[in-house]
Amino acid sequence: MGISISKATKEQSKAHNQSLVLRVIYSEGQISRADVARITGLTRPTVSSAVAELIADGLVAETGVGPSLGGKPPILLNVVDDCRYLIGVDLAESEFRGALVNLRGQIKTRLSLPIHDQDGEAALTLVHRLIDRLIAASDRPILGIGIGTPGLMDAHRNVVRHAVNLDWRNLSLGDLLEARYRMPVYIANDCQVAALAEMAFGCGKELSHLLLVKVGRGIGAGVVINRHIYYGDGFGAGEIGHVVVRPDGDQCRCGNRGCLETLASSRALVRRAQAIYDQQPDTPLRQVAASADELSTGALLKAFEMGDKNIRLLVREASLYLGQVLAVLAGALDINRIVIAGSLSRFGDALTVPIRQQIQQSILPTLDHKVLVEVSQLGQDIVILGAAALLLSQELGLS
Amino acid sequence: MGISISKATKEQSKAHNQSLVLRVIYSEGQISRADVARITGLTRPTVSSAVAELIADGLVAETGVGPSLGGKPPILLNVVDDCRYLIGVDLAESEFRGALVNLRGQIKTRLSLPIHDQDGEAALTLVHRLIDRLIAASDRPILGIGIGTPGLMDAHRNVVRHAVNLDWRNLSLGDLLEARYRMPVYIANDCQVAALAEMAFGCGKELSHLLLVKVGRGIGAGVVINRHIYYGDGFGAGEIGHVVVRPDGDQCRCGNRGCLETLASSRALVRRAQAIYDQQPDTPLRQVAASADELSTGALLKAFEMGDKNIRLLVREASLYLGQVLAVLAGALDINRIVIAGSLSRFGDALTVPIRQQIQQSILPTLDHKVLVEVSQLGQDIVILGAAALLLSQELGLS
Repeated sequence: MGISISKATKEQSKAHNQSLVLRVIYSEGQISRADVARITGLTRPTVSSAVAELIADGLVAETGVGPSLGGKPPILLNVVDDCRYLIGVDLAESEFRGALVNLRGQIKTRLSLPIHDQDGEAALTLVHRLIDRLIAASDRPILGIGIGTPGLMDAHRNVVRHAVNLDWRNLSLGDLLEARYRMPVYIANDCQVAALAEMAFGCGKELSHLLLVKVGRGIGAGVVINRHIYYGDGFGAGEIGHVVVRPDGDQCRCGNRGCLETLASSRALVRRAQAIYDQQPDTPLRQVAASADELSTGALLKAFEMGDKNIRLLVREASLYLGQVLAVLAGALDINRIVIAGSLSRFGDALTVPIRQQIQQSILPTLDHKVLVEVSQLGQDIVILGAAALLLSQELGLS
Repeated sequence: MGISISKATKEQSKAHNQSLVLRVIYSEGQISRADVARITGLTRPTVSSAVAELIADGLVAETGVGPSLGGKPPILLNVVDDCRYLIGVDLAESEFRGALVNLRGQIKTRLSLPIHDQDGEAALTLVHRLIDRLIAASDRPILGIGIGTPGLMDAHRNVVRHAVNLDWRNLSLGDLLEARYRMPVYIANDCQVAALAEMAFGCGKELSHLLLVKVGRGIGAGVVINRHIYYGDGFGAGEIGHVVVRPDGDQCRCGNRGCLETLASSRALVRRAQAIYDQQPDTPLRQVAASADELSTGALLKAFEMGDKNIRLLVREASLYLGQVLAVLAGALDINRIVIAGSLSRFGDALTVPIRQQIQQSILPTLDHKVLVEVSQLGQDIVILGAAALLLSQELGLS
């Protein structure tokens, strides 16, 4: 019946206060106990006792003294950024990537293992190998493991419902990894955690809501509402790649025709570039690849940077389709920040400006002027960082 | 920095427990103190003292005895549904409506005042008159006032940013009414509160998320996420009426062309019916209105019920446009329940079935099969009930 049952016991209240104090020290940095008390509304003794425990846990340290306001100069507190490492894992299509990440989202060690058609059990073994190596590489206590995976995840039960490429169906990945590593494990869809990365370590630090769109071989979005991943009724929130944009369009792997993915993914872009490869003899495109078959997103990007107008037009076309779908979302959700990640985000303004234009033309004039469309600055690490951010928010309440 | 600063003091903890106990009694009904303790996890003495206060406040009463489980038969508790009345107000386009509503969403007294071109100060006077009369009609203490209004509302500051028809701009309606009536006032956009009505008193009692679409003279949606109204960055969430669906379409009052409102609102439907009125001499449409100028949504509905095929086609066409926009939302938000309200909802299946079909054809097959599109059962009272639900959830935590 939608009731949130909770109880304010002494222990919970203590844990709650400690978490609150940690959050304030994390977000403010260099702060005195008196200021923590002022911001949280907790009493000085409560703050002091919470801080004492956080120092004993190694999470917080006294890192200096502030200016005196008459009496004794106050001791300043800070979170110890490297006191714990987070394991962030990105089960990407072509390789499994992982990293040790500190509490500020700084990557300390990066690892990647190529996938050679492994799926099922073999893919799981590859996940083990990646995490084993990261644990071996760490010289700090590890807080836990965060994972971003393509496909449909039940993020509450940590079960992979369906990941096509890995041939996983209803795999209790979370339970398996917790049993093996004896540490907390959190898993969510790759686009959903990417949105969280942007919130925690990217451009979203001051925002309440954000829409992240990952445009690569597939297209998916992550919706962050009130600084939390919004999963939807069946964990499928963000599935915009298979919204039909042109009912008379190409057949999609999902069974429908003219899905956004068939029009604006990197695969669609490469296919379109292949179709025009032979049309003009003297284009940058012809210089970067010896034949249409050799074209890739990287080649298209190179040709684009060399000024290939055809590629610019193809990117623009893809953007307008993206904009068409994003306009409905921007209008219906009144979300002012749209961040683009994934391999196509490397086209920068050529991608974002037409998206912005399309939104401008498609929603209520009073809403549209605030919508900002930009490229993520987190690059290829975005899913790793998002997985780490998921762990950080779930375990320490930090985001 | 997205930190929710809160403090678990004794008083807050007491208020929290009392509210928790009230919520459980409200949702369960006929429940013993022991069962309340079991469900909430609170101790028996804490529950007893919270119940004593709720009984003293008149909110809860002992209403019977349950079956004995060996010892003394337990006394059963219930919320006193009529202990307070809620004032719910709908500032609709053609008239201002209001009602006294009990804690279960039952309407006790209904009032409406026609608008004769009043706007600005005169419209505010009309609001006063409506509320004055409702207060005079009440024989119970009044909990407060909830208002649903068309236009853009700042629901946190209770300020009407812009309501075109009433010519209100940045009107501190909440402050003005709180000063006049000395009771709590909550205001939100009419479609947003309508969604809340569905959640509290309609089909959404067991749901987490819901999308309500009001299709009348205008088109707007209310998005409920985790049982709360989702407002968006600028309180504009749900503004789907001005999403452009046909860039080459008719001019809209908002300045753009081919907005959803120009294609699927009651105005659009009437306009289209007018255009075909003269085409066939022997249709039900010709029987219900003596000329094209006399057509209204009511006349169209009558003709439709008499089996007018042209009207059925027009409704179908409008539905497909609605479905096109709703498919993007259903796909991106993974919301399984879409409820249609407003005057066009009276077309029932003729409206909802094509919407459902359009969604089915337009989103990922694994997502679509769970999406249910249905007509609201709350009828014309939906905004009044939503305004009451907003008040109820804000003041008593009940929803």
